[in-house]
Amino acid sequence: MNTAMILKNLGILLMVEAGCMLPSLLVAIIYKQSDAMAFLLTIIILVVTGFVMNKVPARNKNFYTRDGFAIVSLGWILLSLFGALPFFISGAIPSYVDAFFETVSGFTTTGSTILKEIESLPRGILFWRSFTNWMGGMGVLVMMLAVLPAAGANTLQIMKAESPGPDPGKLVPRIGQTAKILYLMYIALTFVQSVLLLIGGMPLYDTLINSFSTAGTGGFSNMNTSIGAYNNLYYEIIIGLFMFLFGINFTLYYQAIKGGLKNIYKDEEFRFYLFTAVGAILLITLNTWGPNFASVWESLRHASFQVSSVMTTTGFSSTNFDLWPVFSKSILIVLMFVGASAGSTGGGIKCVRFVLLFKTIKREVRRIIHPRSVYTVKYSGKTVDNDVMSGVMSYFFIIIVVFTISLLLISLDGFDMVTNFSAVVATISNIGPGLAAVGPNGNFAAYSDLSKIIFSITMLFGRLEIYPMLILLAPTFWKKVNI
Amino acid sequence: MNTAMILKNLGILLMVEAGCMLPSLLVAIIYKQSDAMAFLLTIIILVVTGFVMNKVPARNKNFYTRDGFAIVSLGWILLSLFGALPFFISGAIPSYVDAFFETVSGFTTTGSTILKEIESLPRGILFWRSFTNWMGGMGVLVMMLAVLPAAGANTLQIMKAESPGPDPGKLVPRIGQTAKILYLMYIALTFVQSVLLLIGGMPLYDTLINSFSTAGTGGFSNMNTSIGAYNNLYYEIIIGLFMFLFGINFTLYYQAIKGGLKNIYKDEEFRFYLFTAVGAILLITLNTWGPNFASVWESLRHASFQVSSVMTTTGFSSTNFDLWPVFSKSILIVLMFVGASAGSTGGGIKCVRFVLLFKTIKREVRRIIHPRSVYTVKYSGKTVDNDVMSGVMSYFFIIIVVFTISLLLISLDGFDMVTNFSAVVATISNIGPGLAAVGPNGNFAAYSDLSKIIFSITMLFGRLEIYPMLILLAPTFWKKVNI
Repeated sequence: MNTAMILKNLGILLMVEAGCMLPSLLVAIIYKQSDAMAFLLTIIILVVTGFVMNKVPARNKNFYTRDGFAIVSLGWILLSLFGALPFFISGAIPSYVDAFFETVSGFTTTGSTILKEIESLPRGILFWRSFTNWMGGMGVLVMMLAVLPAAGANTLQIMKAESPGPDPGKLVPRIGQTAKILYLMYIALTFVQSVLLLIGGMPLYDTLINSFSTAGTGGFSNMNTSIGAYNNLYYEIIIGLFMFLFGINFTLYYQAIKGGLKNIYKDEEFRFYLFTAVGAILLITLNTWGPNFASVWESLRHASFQVSSVMTTTGFSSTNFDLWPVFSKSILIVLMFVGASAGSTGGGIKCVRFVLLFKTIKREVRRIIHPRSVYTVKYSGKTVDNDVMSGVMSYFFIIIVVFTISLLLISLDGFDMVTNFSAVVATISNIGPGLAAVGPNGNFAAYSDLSKIIFSITMLFGRLEIYPMLILLAPTFWKKVNI
Repeated sequence: MNTAMILKNLGILLMVEAGCMLPSLLVAIIYKQSDAMAFLLTIIILVVTGFVMNKVPARNKNFYTRDGFAIVSLGWILLSLFGALPFFISGAIPSYVDAFFETVSGFTTTGSTILKEIESLPRGILFWRSFTNWMGGMGVLVMMLAVLPAAGANTLQIMKAESPGPDPGKLVPRIGQTAKILYLMYIALTFVQSVLLLIGGMPLYDTLINSFSTAGTGGFSNMNTSIGAYNNLYYEIIIGLFMFLFGINFTLYYQAIKGGLKNIYKDEEFRFYLFTAVGAILLITLNTWGPNFASVWESLRHASFQVSSVMTTTGFSSTNFDLWPVFSKSILIVLMFVGASAGSTGGGIKCVRFVLLFKTIKREVRRIIHPRSVYTVKYSGKTVDNDVMSGVMSYFFIIIVVFTISLLLISLDGFDMVTNFSAVVATISNIGPGLAAVGPNGNFAAYSDLSKIIFSITMLFGRLEIYPMLILLAPTFWKKVNI
């Protein structure tokens, strides 16, 4: 690996993080709370460290896929280690491991929390917490590529490693331009949502926090009982709708702007995403109507919000769905695995992978019935080549392996199986809340420090889609150190 | 599909089943119990139906992979539908759906039961129940191929479809001969186990029942609390050891007879199977020593027995492991998925598939680090071709899909999530008992008839490894009907 180039890029990344902390510092100053000092101190540490790292002399400016992957995985770990400082220094989260967990949860747009009491925290701290959701949604490295001239060749690898889904499309030939377009659309959608919430009467501070967390499909709220605290149908409709919109591949928006809305519906992944959501909403509405809600409209309201929240892996809740019947809870658990679309801000395994896997099943069955014919898997009219298919299937398997190892390790803490199981699903899929003790009204505080670190690693595995994290574990990767 | 040839083969199969019922009839006559009539009646029905089906005229004697697969899946369904008759006619199981569930559970060597009280049942019925474990272990169609001259060309397809694992080896060029060798080794191992149990003082009747259920890795016992009822260390050692032996690929025994024991240890799957078992035993011993057992030997004794039982998917229990710590229970759940070796009588996903999948992960990581090199997956020194790898990975995915659909459907019954989850794992992996309400001291009786039918289908999917069952669901398969 090209250590010098990796360090240089990581240095830039830390300075970008310092810049991203300025709005939170501003909020802290406006509300005149004690957290302003914590932000100022962290920003100074970030700028100094970043500057020093960026000054490392690099003889060789080329870098390869492995270096791009390392920048992304090491970058995310560094961002979280430093991003945890404001929580820790301000005393909002007295344990550094807890602060690290909360920051990883923010950047990975998971939204799991170790906080029992949210509403009393300083306003700048809560603002930063939700802002990490927004930054992590579209990707911090994509932001770096958008605002800075390319730091080296082969930056496509960085974007590939950070973007969710098997095949991030280049919208336009230049990477920096693509990154800019993505961020512009992201800002525009966030802005529209904010305006709609303000029109509905939500205070500006709450609006910003909720819009950031919706856009990143992160789910950090400033209320102890999440969106349910407002008990406001209008807010739920706007937030429910925008969670769904942020779970759509952003490439489709670009195509829709250029060629009309039909381009969205033509996309196979979008149809899978839409029909799965609609089917789940109908089933849960029927199942909770009666045992949980007196009117079918009330059922439909909460079913829609929760399905949108869980499938996009946001993790907001409008009601405590841990009290729902087992059938509905099982559907939610399945949706946690499925997740949103590739190229969106959502997490999970991603719809496109399921579309491809179902096509593989069909091919295998056909192969048995007509052994002499040759079958290829087609997606949106194009043949999918074997390397992509093999990548999709290995990804699916590795997710299960990471899941299993995490589950075994955290089960040493002795919590019940539903809590453990749903906690691992919620973190690996970047959802946030699980069921039972880590349900919508619960939190991760009771787990041991070791388990919190394991959950943090699991969240990073989920957000970065395995491979960038996995190469850090490969001995051959470290053997190639070359300064 | 070649309907005439399929019917002819299914006819033979039913007559083979009639023959297999004779020992149970004999037991019923010896003990002079009311169940003799039920066996006699069923045998007559089987012989008549089988004879008529076998007389269908076939113009075309060729058949293809799809026909082999159909014979296996339809054959197993018919075997179970008719095999349930003795339970139903004798009144031992008053509901036909329950009797069908119990028979599928027997043939698929699952060992899940709907019976709350076992010890009071007629002796012929209990004998038949364990005998289905033995028949299903090595395969009823393999038995048919062993005892009868080949019914048509391409019988390799039948063996392929019925044998567990991705690649059943032909031991010798002729299929009938291979089937004979497999059954001879199977009978020999069952015989040795029986002798050892008799030497230890187990009554003949109990010996036969326990040996049949061990050999098939089925786990049907004649005691309400399974092997734990004897509380006999010697029995546990013999049965624990033989469960492990029946979970080894039978091809390796043949190679060991011809070339020495080192051939077993050289096999990559065997090493994975052995080390996984040893690792799990050590972890569970440490975890249960203290909270569950006062002495480390007591922990080791029950950990070894349960790991051997769960990993080979037998399902015998020496103690109620539902009372163990969550960490140990989670390990058992993982072992339920892993399963035994390909070409053994055990169920689960099979060790060889995990060996291949781990090698794929390694390849994917290497591909990122050195993108220009070409990597192939090797197994036991030979290159694994892409079609096999793709089959292994799709298999893994389809198992998860079948698992999910079953879980959602049975969760409508409203049981808790641990019961539901472990019940589906226990049936799809052909284990038997799960946790909580379906744990070692529980049973499946409380589920609805619909759920019992779903569990039966799940067990067949697990035992026949997906594809034979899946083609029955393909519309294109039925379009090709051709008499």
